[in-house]
Amino acid sequence: MAKYEQLVAQIRQQIETEIWLPGEKLPSLREQVSLSGVSLMTVMHAYQVLESQGWIISRPQSGYYVAPRAEFLSQPVSHQKLQLAESVDINAFIFDVLQACRDPHIVPFGSAFPDPELFPQRQLMRALTTVSHSMKPVDALHNLPPGNEALRKTLAQRYALQGVQVSPDEIVITNGAMEALNLSLQAVTEPGDWVAIENPSFYGALQAIERLKLKAVAIATDPQTGIDLDELSRALESWPIKAMWMMSNQQNPVGCTLSREKKQQLVALLAQHNVTLIEDDVYSELYFGNEKPLPAKAFDRDDNVLHCSSFSKNLVAGFRVGWVAGGKHAQRIQRMQLMSTLSTSAPMQQALATYLGTRSYDRHLRRLRQVLEQRKNLALQSLKRHLPVGAKINESRGGYFLWIELPKQVNTTELYYRALEQKISIAPGKMFSSSEQYANYFRFNTAWWDDVQEAAVAKLGALIGELL
Amino acid sequence: MAKYEQLVAQIRQQIETEIWLPGEKLPSLREQVSLSGVSLMTVMHAYQVLESQGWIISRPQSGYYVAPRAEFLSQPVSHQKLQLAESVDINAFIFDVLQACRDPHIVPFGSAFPDPELFPQRQLMRALTTVSHSMKPVDALHNLPPGNEALRKTLAQRYALQGVQVSPDEIVITNGAMEALNLSLQAVTEPGDWVAIENPSFYGALQAIERLKLKAVAIATDPQTGIDLDELSRALESWPIKAMWMMSNQQNPVGCTLSREKKQQLVALLAQHNVTLIEDDVYSELYFGNEKPLPAKAFDRDDNVLHCSSFSKNLVAGFRVGWVAGGKHAQRIQRMQLMSTLSTSAPMQQALATYLGTRSYDRHLRRLRQVLEQRKNLALQSLKRHLPVGAKINESRGGYFLWIELPKQVNTTELYYRALEQKISIAPGKMFSSSEQYANYFRFNTAWWDDVQEAAVAKLGALIGELL
Repeated sequence: MAKYEQLVAQIRQQIETEIWLPGEKLPSLREQVSLSGVSLMTVMHAYQVLESQGWIISRPQSGYYVAPRAEFLSQPVSHQKLQLAESVDINAFIFDVLQACRDPHIVPFGSAFPDPELFPQRQLMRALTTVSHSMKPVDALHNLPPGNEALRKTLAQRYALQGVQVSPDEIVITNGAMEALNLSLQAVTEPGDWVAIENPSFYGALQAIERLKLKAVAIATDPQTGIDLDELSRALESWPIKAMWMMSNQQNPVGCTLSREKKQQLVALLAQHNVTLIEDDVYSELYFGNEKPLPAKAFDRDDNVLHCSSFSKNLVAGFRVGWVAGGKHAQRIQRMQLMSTLSTSAPMQQALATYLGTRSYDRHLRRLRQVLEQRKNLALQSLKRHLPVGAKINESRGGYFLWIELPKQVNTTELYYRALEQKISIAPGKMFSSSEQYANYFRFNTAWWDDVQEAAVAKLGALIGELL
Repeated sequence: MAKYEQLVAQIRQQIETEIWLPGEKLPSLREQVSLSGVSLMTVMHAYQVLESQGWIISRPQSGYYVAPRAEFLSQPVSHQKLQLAESVDINAFIFDVLQACRDPHIVPFGSAFPDPELFPQRQLMRALTTVSHSMKPVDALHNLPPGNEALRKTLAQRYALQGVQVSPDEIVITNGAMEALNLSLQAVTEPGDWVAIENPSFYGALQAIERLKLKAVAIATDPQTGIDLDELSRALESWPIKAMWMMSNQQNPVGCTLSREKKQQLVALLAQHNVTLIEDDVYSELYFGNEKPLPAKAFDRDDNVLHCSSFSKNLVAGFRVGWVAGGKHAQRIQRMQLMSTLSTSAPMQQALATYLGTRSYDRHLRRLRQVLEQRKNLALQSLKRHLPVGAKINESRGGYFLWIELPKQVNTTELYYRALEQKISIAPGKMFSSSEQYANYFRFNTAWWDDVQEAAVAKLGALIGELL
């Protein structure tokens, strides 16, 4: 063990045994030199590592303090910790899970996408044909950031129909919601900044935080009621959080949708702390029931919410078209897009604008929701038949995910590998958290359903039985 | 001025007046505390700033040293310096120049793209129609990273025809060359790392370096002979450079193409120092004469060159399809793409694969090169008629850029604003360097040419006359 590692271990132990209490000032660098007998460089290195791991915080002009670390706080996740300890594995693992879902011979319970057969392929391709007949060379220019004007207007109209005030000018069309979310996060943070996320959360958030060298505070998120606002509030008081990335509708992976009141409280709380909300809202069209849930953005009074979404989960996956309603950050996001991917494909933007102009989108969505609800019910019945006693299924209404808790002794990563041998994929809990807290959970995609799936659930049930 | 700024200024002056010589060890942090009478935090802050500005280097376990700074080295450009001093302005400025080129009423001498009327719109749209009739929902999966297999095979064949050994498996299809270059740079660097670039260089490189918090060493690049290999060699010995981003064919903005020997030497030199070459090769199809110039990648014996290109400058701008031949880094690049934009649009990849399958690409390229050569000659004649005595035009053969030097007293940023009032855009030297060295240069796009352009050159000549 290097000297700085010894010092890191020593100070961590001192914090764990409460020699130094949360909020207390640590010995200064020079004091630590004389205390521990190592060089200043070593002390600096150790303090930096401890800071990056979330054990201590530096306050400019003042020194180092033990980080707030009360019971209620989830473990802070630093990118360095991720990187050193497990991120390579986790990213490789997520990559493998995603790769597995590409094989058409594997039952895609682990997929993040719905069955593409549910999408209006014929109408979309008709729109593409129209574009291929009408597009002019100069049209490439009209689709540069912020993106196709007709498309941005249609999006603004759809916001307006929900009573959400978004101008076409503050919308930036992106390469899917993934680019929208990544650019948004980059627009409001600098490396080293703290970001709040949910626990469990979409793995894309964990990866973005690591890639952008940010630090994460993961806030407990209940499968039924969603994010714990008390915990969030305490976190906001304890950490210099700059932004929060979360989903208020059909959260991935747990599936819950926040109540109207809770969304309002969330937005107010973040505004009060001057923390930008980056809202990932890609599943909100897939509600069951009569009313589309509002985004948290609907309660934004301070231009403090960046609302990101796409067509990939409800209309077409392969076009790679999403957007962000970026408010005051829209211009910065445009510029960052120009620097990183330049723009979203022009024919794809135009094809979507053409398709949306036919007004068949809402008809398609109604049908899609119906089928997804039927399939989710079928999947639920099947799972209840085949999962062992002790399995708990979080029955979220909407979307196509079920979040399933198995008895403690079943490790779902192990289950993933065993299932894959039988040509079945699942999305293990490990993908959605940097802690081991969800080692016995998995996300199950209900958007595909026929005899193959029915048989696969039986096999999955048997595999879980073996692991018990 | 804050205390640390005073200390920064003081130490800079000491270095400039050679109190501390390049390579010498600076006083340690603690020594500096007692020397200057300020706090350790202030000293640390000042040293960090000096390091980020390229004045000093830290060596782990050893201390701080004056950075090598001989005559021959161009000024190192740190991202912080850019950021603090001028980056916001420069980025806003580049953004404005790009925006101006979108207005069809502005004569686009400042554009980076060729006249899209030169592209085979009809054939491309026919390919898109074919795709729209044949594409199946599941095809989205087949176009996920690394991208469409037929397209990757065609690209590998095109490499093979030049005698360059690239397997389809090491190619990743991206959202244009811009994404390819950005992902490549990210794949081989960490924030704080040093990157060599050309001076002048494509502004995208400067922006990427800033965005990824890297530090740049800009190597003198002659309009006729290209990059100065001696200077590069000395830079590689002086700085811990991790990667080099450059163009060996029709360099943007100067237009020069390196000789075969020079490419070979460049690749050997970088390999010797274990520095990855990120080769931006988007203009190489636009050569004049009989033979397509080889990429530097052709001389790569150590899997040390990432070759990035696209169809945007020679076939279609708006599809946003590019690629990187990523060698051993291909998988890492794929993963990073999955995390940031997920993938390149499926119909766009398929449409290009379909178009390339018709074998009309090379016929189109032959015609395109012919027209570009004619237009460049016309532009040259016109410029020679209208530019004042003292203007020097770098007559590169190939592509559609001319790099023009005006007499010292003409500031091309000023010229840009005046020309814009007359609905003419140019690309001022300021866009291509973080130094003021090219304040009297501009890049001129010759790919559009008719009476409008002819008249615009006359106006431009008159404006330059006014500034003299």
